This record gives sequence, C-alpha cells and structure tokens, in this order.
Amino acid sequence: MAFLRNTWYVAAWSGEVGRQCLARKILGEPIMLYRTAAGQPVALLDRCPHRLLPLSKGSIEGDTIECGYHGLTFDSAGRCIRAPGQERIPPGASVRAYPVAEHMGMVWIWPGDPALADRSKLFDQLPQWADARGPKPQWALLEGPLTYVNANYLLLSENLVDPAHVVYVHKRSLGSPAMANIPIDASQQGDALLVSRWTPNAPASPILQRYGKWAGNVDRWQYYWMYPPHIAVVDFGAGPPGMDRSDAGRDAAMRLFTAHFMTPETATTTFYFWFVLRNFAIGDPVLGNDLIEQVTMTFMEDKAILEAIEEAEAEPFVSSRVKLAVDVGSVRLRKAVDRMIAEEEAQQVSGRQRIGIAST
Amino acid sequence: MAFLRNTWYVAAWSGEVGRQCLARKILGEPIMLYRTAAGQPVALLDRCPHRLLPLSKGSIEGDTIECGYHGLTFDSAGRCIRAPGQERIPPGASVRAYPVAEHMGMVWIWPGDPALADRSKLFDQLPQWADARGPKPQWALLEGPLTYVNANYLLLSENLVDPAHVVYVHKRSLGSPAMANIPIDASQQGDALLVSRWTPNAPASPILQRYGKWAGNVDRWQYYWMYPPHIAVVDFGAGPPGMDRSDAGRDAAMRLFTAHFMTPETATTTFYFWFVLRNFAIGDPVLGNDLIEQVTMTFMEDKAILEAIEEAEAEPFVSSRVKLAVDVGSVRLRKAVDRMIAEEEAQQVSGRQRIGIAST
Amino acid sequence: MAFLRNTWYVAAWSGEVGRQCLARKILGEPIMLYRTAAGQPVALLDRCPHRLLPLSKGSIEGDTIECGYHGLTFDSAGRCIRAPGQERIPPGASVRAYPVAEHMGMVWIWPGDPALADRSKLFDQLPQWADARGPKPQWALLEGPLTYVNANYLLLSENLVDPAHVVYVHKRSLGSPAMANIPIDASQQGDALLVSRWTPNAPASPILQRYGKWAGNVDRWQYYWMYPPHIAVVDFGAGPPGMDRSDAGRDAAMRLFTAHFMTPETATTTFYFWFVLRNFAIGDPVLGNDLIEQVTMTFMEDKAILEAIEEAEAEPFVSSRVKLAVDVGSVRLRKAVDRMIAEEEAQQVSGRQRIGIAST
Repeated sequence: MAFLRNTWYVAAWSGEVGRQCLARKILGEPIMLYRTAAGQPVALLDRCPHRLLPLSKGSIEGDTIECGYHGLTFDSAGRCIRAPGQERIPPGASVRAYPVAEHMGMVWIWPGDPALADRSKLFDQLPQWADARGPKPQWALLEGPLTYVNANYLLLSENLVDPAHVVYVHKRSLGSPAMANIPIDASQQGDALLVSRWTPNAPASPILQRYGKWAGNVDRWQYYWMYPPHIAVVDFGAGPPGMDRSDAGRDAAMRLFTAHFMTPETATTTFYFWFVLRNFAIGDPVLGNDLIEQVTMTFMEDKAILEAIEEAEAEPFVSSRVKLAVDVGSVRLRKAVDRMIAEEEAQQVSGRQRIGIAST
Repeated sequence: MAFLRNTWYVAAWSGEVGRQCLARKILGEPIMLYRTAAGQPVALLDRCPHRLLPLSKGSIEGDTIECGYHGLTFDSAGRCIRAPGQERIPPGASVRAYPVAEHMGMVWIWPGDPALADRSKLFDQLPQWADARGPKPQWALLEGPLTYVNANYLLLSENLVDPAHVVYVHKRSLGSPAMANIPIDASQQGDALLVSRWTPNAPASPILQRYGKWAGNVDRWQYYWMYPPHIAVVDFGAGPPGMDRSDAGRDAAMRLFTAHFMTPETATTTFYFWFVLRNFAIGDPVLGNDLIEQVTMTFMEDKAILEAIEEAEAEPFVSSRVKLAVDVGSVRLRKAVDRMIAEEEAQQVSGRQRIGIAST
Repeated sequence: MAFLRNTWYVAAWSGEVGRQCLARKILGEPIMLYRTAAGQPVALLDRCPHRLLPLSKGSIEGDTIECGYHGLTFDSAGRCIRAPGQERIPPGASVRAYPVAEHMGMVWIWPGDPALADRSKLFDQLPQWADARGPKPQWALLEGPLTYVNANYLLLSENLVDPAHVVYVHKRSLGSPAMANIPIDASQQGDALLVSRWTPNAPASPILQRYGKWAGNVDRWQYYWMYPPHIAVVDFGAGPPGMDRSDAGRDAAMRLFTAHFMTPETATTTFYFWFVLRNFAIGDPVLGNDLIEQVTMTFMEDKAILEAIEEAEAEPFVSSRVKLAVDVGSVRLRKAVDRMIAEEEAQQVSGRQRIGIAST
C-alpha cells in the first residue's frame, strides 16, 4: 500500500518523547525518537547500519545515540561520530534522520523528502487549542489515551467523514434515531472536505444530554472537517431549536471539537491520537474526567467496528459491493487521497532525478 | 481443498441458535445464525455487502438483521429491506441466505446450490434418537460438548472407520490388547461404509467393564457406520460369550451408539458435534454424567492424535508412506469422498450453466 | 538456508534423554530421542511412516518405540519390527535413524550421511572438562541451563568471535571502558579461528573483580576459539600486571573457560548449550551458584541483542551496511562456514551418486 509521504504525521505525544529511546514503527518504517539535552526531539531510522541492531536498544549519551552492540555512535542528524576500535569514521556511516517538529502537544515527523519538509504545512486549523493553553481560556483541552487500532488508517479517516454511522455505532453516546434519515451535505472547503448534518428540533443525543441536561428538544449539528489523508476535526453540539447556525451561534451554544490524527503504523494498523475541546464547564475536572471516559468509550466502539472490517476485507466473500447515499464523504476522501498519492509519486520521480535520493 | 457442498452440515446445536447472533465459519465461509421471533433458524453470509462488516456485529430487529455500521437491514431471506439515509433500496443489495433445517437437536445448513437443498437428504439412520425423545424411551440420549479440533475433518472421519486405533489411542477406555490382531471387516451398505470387528471371549474394555461389571469374559463388537464424508455412527457393546450377534441380539446385550457429525470450519479445523445413546441405566443421571465424562476424555485422546497428525502433514519429512491392512476403512472412505466431490464438481458446472449462479 | 550436515551437533544434555520420549527439532528436522534399557541414546526421525504421527507421542516398549496411533513398532535402528493386524512387516517400513554419540555430558547427533559419521570428529579441545570430572580436579565444571534463542545460530557464533561487543553489551559483567579501543588479533589455529585481545594494566571487569577482589589493576585476556560453524570456547581471566601470558601463565592466574555449542532448531531459532570451567574456588558451591547466575545473566544480554538483530534482518531498511575493523572474526567465520557448506554440497552430490541416498 502506498502512503502519502510528503506530509507531517504525529509520531508521539510530546510527553512520550524524552531522554529514553522510544521505538515506534511509522508508515512501516522502524523509527526511534528521543530528545537532546536541550529538549529538541530527534527521529532516526531505528537501525544501526553496522549489524542492524535497533538503535533504540542502545543508550543516549549527551545528544548522541550509542549502538548497544559495538558502540557506533550517531549524532542527532544521524551522522556517525565514533567507531570504537578504529580511528577513522567509516565512510557512509550514517542513519536516516527524519525532519521533526513539535506542535500542538505532539511530536510530528515528515517521512518524505526532507528538502520538502516545511513547518508551515503543519496542521493549524484549530485556534481553540492555543486558546485552551492560553492565559484566559474559553476552551478546555483534554488529550485522549494513545489508541492502537488494528485497521488501515483510511478506515478511520472514512469513519470521520461519515455522520451516518453515529446512529448505529454510537447508540449509547452520540447517536439518536432522529438523525437516521437526514441527508448529508458534503462540500470542499479549501484543502478540507466538509461533511455535515443538522438534526433540528429533536432530543439531544445521550452525551449532549449528559452534560447539557436539556429540558426539551434541541437543534444538533455535526460538522466533519477532513484534511486528507489523516487529520480530522469534528465540530458538534446542541442549542435551542431555531438557534443561530453560524460559527458565532455555535460558540454561544454547547460546543465540542474532537481532533483526530491517524498515523499508519503499517498498512493494517494505526496509531490514533485524539483530543477534545469544549466550551462549557472549563474549570471542572470532574466533568472533564467523565467526558474523556465517555469519548474513549465511544471511540472504542469505532475501533471494534473498524477492526472487524479490516479483518473482513482480507476475506471479503462479497463480489459486488453496495453503494449508499451516505458514502458521499468516503467517496470524496478516497478520491482526494488517491489524487494526492498519485501527485506525490509523480513528484518523487522527478525529485529523485533532481537530488539523487535512493529509493528505500 | 475442495469440500462437498451439496449436503447438509451441522452448523450448531439447536440451543446455540437464538435471538442473538451466532457467528461461525463453515467450509471457510463466514456465516451468522439467528432465529426469527417464531423460532425459525436463519443462516446468512456474515458480511454486509456495503462495507463488509460482519452482520453478526449488528442487531436483530424483529425477524431482520440490522447492520451495526450504517443500519442496512436484511430479512431472513437475505433481501435488503431498508437503507437509512435514502428512500430507494440499492439494487442488488442482498446477502446470501443458506437453506437451513432443524433436525435431531441440531441446526443444519446446506452450503451448496439452494435449488438442490432437500430435507429428505437429512441424516436419518438412527431411530434410537427419536425413541430417546419419545414417551417411553428404551434409549437414553446425551449430547457431548461442542468439540473444536485443529485438524481436517477427514482425519476425524477416517478415525471413525478405523477400529484398529482403539487399542493404542484408547488404552484406558475402549481398547484392550485382545483386539490388536483381529482382522477388520469392511463392506458397503447402501450409502454407508461399514467397518466392523468382533472380539470374542475376552475381557471387557475398561469403559464397558465400568458400567457392565462383568464377572468373566465377554463377546465385544465394534460396528463403524460411515456416511461419507462427514457423519459416522459407532455401534459397540458387549454380551456373554456366544451371544446372538444380530441387531436384536445386540439390543438384548449392553449396547451404545455414538453419533458423530464433522463440520469443516476450514481445511485444517473442524467443529465436531457428537452424542451418545445407551440402552442401559436409562433413568440414571449419575451414570449418565459419568458416561459423558468418560466419552469426552476418550474423544480428547483422538483430538490430540489427529491434531498432531494435522501439524505433521504440513511438514511430512516422509517420502513414502506405509500402507497397512487396517487402512481398509480409510482407503474406502477417501475413495468415496473423492468420487462424491468429483461428481459434484461436474454437476456444479452444468448447474451453473443452467441457473446462472456465479462462482464464489 | 543451508546447514552443514556432516558434523556432530549437540541434541540434548545427557540428563534430558531417558526412558521417556524427547521431541526436538534440529536443523529443521523433527527428531525424537530416548535411551534403550541399557542406556544407549537413540535418535529417530519423529514421524511414523504410516500416518505421520510423531513417534514421540507413542510409548517406549523395551528398546523399541510403539506408535501411538496404530502400534507400528520400530527398533532403535528405525526398522519396523511389528505391524498390528497383519503378519507381514510392510516392506520399506522404517524410520530414519541418526548416528548418536554421548560425549562431554551431552548427546550428539550427526544429521548428515551416516556413512561419514565418525566419533573421532567429536569436539575434543577442552581437556579441562575431563579433569573436572576426574578424581583430583584442578577445574570446576558448571553446566548452564539450556538456552533457547530466537536467532540464527551463526549470529551466536559471530558473537563468540567478537571481543568488541563485550564493552557495550556486557557493561555490568564482562566489559570495561578500557577495552574499547584495543585492536583485535585474529589468526587461524588449525581448524579453529582464534580472536583475542589483551587489556593490560586496567581495572578488572565486574565479574572478575567479583571473584578476584583485586586491589589494583590487572592484565586481562580474552581468547575466543571458534570451531566453525557452531562450537566456541572463550578463555578469559586476569592476573597481576606484567603476568606471564603463556598457557601456563594463564593457568597460574584466575582463569575461566566458557564452552558454547549452537544447534540450529530452524534457520531462525537455536538451542544454545553452554558450560563454564574455572580454576579457582573449586569446591565452593556458593560461589559456583553465584557464577552460573552471573554468566546466565550475561548470556541473556547477548540473547536480547541477537534476537533483536534476527528480527531486524527480516526488515533491514538499510541498503548499505557499514564494515568495521572489529568485524575481523565475523568475516573469517562467515567465509569458513560458506566454504565448509560448499565443500559438503559438492561432496553430497558425489556421495548420493555413490550410495544412492535420496534427497530429503
């Protein structure tokens, strides 16, 4: 399976990367992460070029990593700086270093052409995250536990441009029967796909009712923003029937964002990073704990469905697949990803010709 | 590996199939079983044709099954009757339904051509089963626990036309050294193979001694009836030396039947359904419990041997296999099964031409 | 992967082989070991040629093995001597018997051409082993626990001609920073490779200090003797600075031998047999227990590194490997093994032509 390479992927929560080695496979590649003494994150291919021992089995000495087998030592750019038993550094002794960035509480890596790595391309569509970290927050931020999913990352991405599944997968939390037959709007918004649905004048879904304690019906919204191939933001909430549906109107109602970052480990497994922002009960840790528990439970429902699908796709037993109207987001997403990967492959060919990178 | 498809296979004990989904792979196909409100068993391919989610992850609503991902709903014939988010049922939206029968306390499915499914072809060679369920039983019935065997189903079938293994595999229960060198009779009886052996005037085997408490020697019999490829009945017991060897004579002695139904899960794994009938101590539950325990222990001995053989067959390390006189039942069985599968394949080709079924 | 076949491999510790069947895969072949009533070890292919049941599932009757399925019985040379249910022994009914030898407390097998098996080729380079078993020992012997390593056996062999790894892998036991930059001597000594290093006038390594309680610096030696492809002896120890470096001089100092016998189970797994000899504290079981614990801990460090490398080699991600000066032993070893296997393959072709052995 081809992955998009010239983009930033979340490799780890910031708190996972420290002065110990963290080994993590990303896009099928073994990578090790650590921080220099000054706190700068480093990502190297997790292989010593001498005998292939994962460097993560070695030890961090100052800002360098010393291989655990024969002491070959590399700096944070992957250059060999010491070869015990000999004076001369062997020519060509280096390990691949990945461009790294720290952003929104996460360490990101760029698995593609380092010459194209660009901090300005980091995901930056959710100013509420910075607000929540600021001095007078209007938003409260909660990071979810790192979630390991035995499914291709695009199954997760598809699920996040798919308001229709909520009724069936999340009966106990986000769904409500009233939503079932409401059509879905899909549109392109700059780089993002937007798939949305308003459910007017209906009972709040269980999770909104739990915190909103609504006396009567509400207008509910779901906006699924998808930044292909692997980042999504869901904007959802509820207000009184007839509420102002604009961004300002939603801010004045009960509003939540969930942000989702899917990083392929392999073609069939995914590291799923996510956090939640809310505009109510900002300083209430009890509600916060309860909310993260509810959302975790909800995403576990997705995980179970997507893992069953991943498994079934290996043995489909279905020769012709049914297409539904609710697939609109998924269809657009798949097309966008295919296009991006095709463009990149064309670009890589010319890039390799230009700067002489060997193929992996 | 080719399986015979136009025949009935036991899919489950009747008690396993209810108003919850039961997922079970049969002949390599994922199948889900449930009952309608009226109690009718249903078997459908366990795949939603939309996104491949196993239908068994969904929920039974009335007599229908609603997919757990987007709510696509199918009736007990596999026809889609609802597609949320749209008015029109997508053309071609259906899942394969398997002909089902309930018989002898088990739910059977017909994985072959539905047009050929015929209740009259259900196994019906053991009137003692109905007697045991009747008002004045001469026979007591005990169902064994569903037994999962990591071996091809034909290894089990072969084992059930093989009286010779009893001496070595079942030393503690059914075997006795006196049997070891007695030749085996094999014959064709209508559709069935019959392999048999009388061991005259010898001590009873441990299990017959346990319940018969014989003071001296006995005449013992083993009749292995095999209905290829996957059903067997073993008739065994003991009486005084010189006993009448006819069916009536055996009824007058201490007699047991074990009935065996092998259902391939895959080419290397089998669901093994079995029950025991006896003509002694009919109303004695303590003896019954002890008997089922003894027989279970005995079949676990077979399971261990057959699983070791399945594993060894993947790495045989033997270029030329030895043939023995005791193989007579196995050789006949394999020939019969090969012939049945070849006939069916010929029939399938013409059947497909006739009614236009697509190959899986 | 090709293995050298015409050589002796350790199959088991002597104490593992008794009147019960021991099943062990060696060079990818399933083998079963037992002893005759007179104590002679026997090694047979672990497959009954009738139905392939591993003979190790059967029972030892006198000096013979009776198959657990139908009682086919083989003598210790692998000849069938009984076939229940028939008078005639089926022609060709035999199982492969491996030449076996008992030597240095271990049972060895010869997986190659039996006509070439020769006790004089058994490893016999360590007279200290016999001394330790003799009446007035100058040496104490301790056998290590059988160690299972998830790595190709040559990774272990390479590790045993590689003094350089000690500094990094065995920081807590054998290594010391003083060794890191001392060059390595390598030479051919008859059939063996010798790789060695003296570390003069430096602190003792932790394990030598633990038992030697040296007040000041020592001269330390490491001699790695490798008998390709699968046997190694390490001679190491310490004495006062300026000590006599001859064999007699080392005997007069604090000296240990570790002997290592690598037997491939498969291309990626190894049975690792090892023992330790020492010339100090001969009669001290408390020190002995502590020493075996220390050495076991040390070899577990190797095991962890080599298993990580075995895993990494399946997904190298490194297109060009770095060569270091410290690889001298490894390079010589690989060349020797390649040459031995090539010679044997040439020999096998002519051998098969000569005595008509079928290829496996």
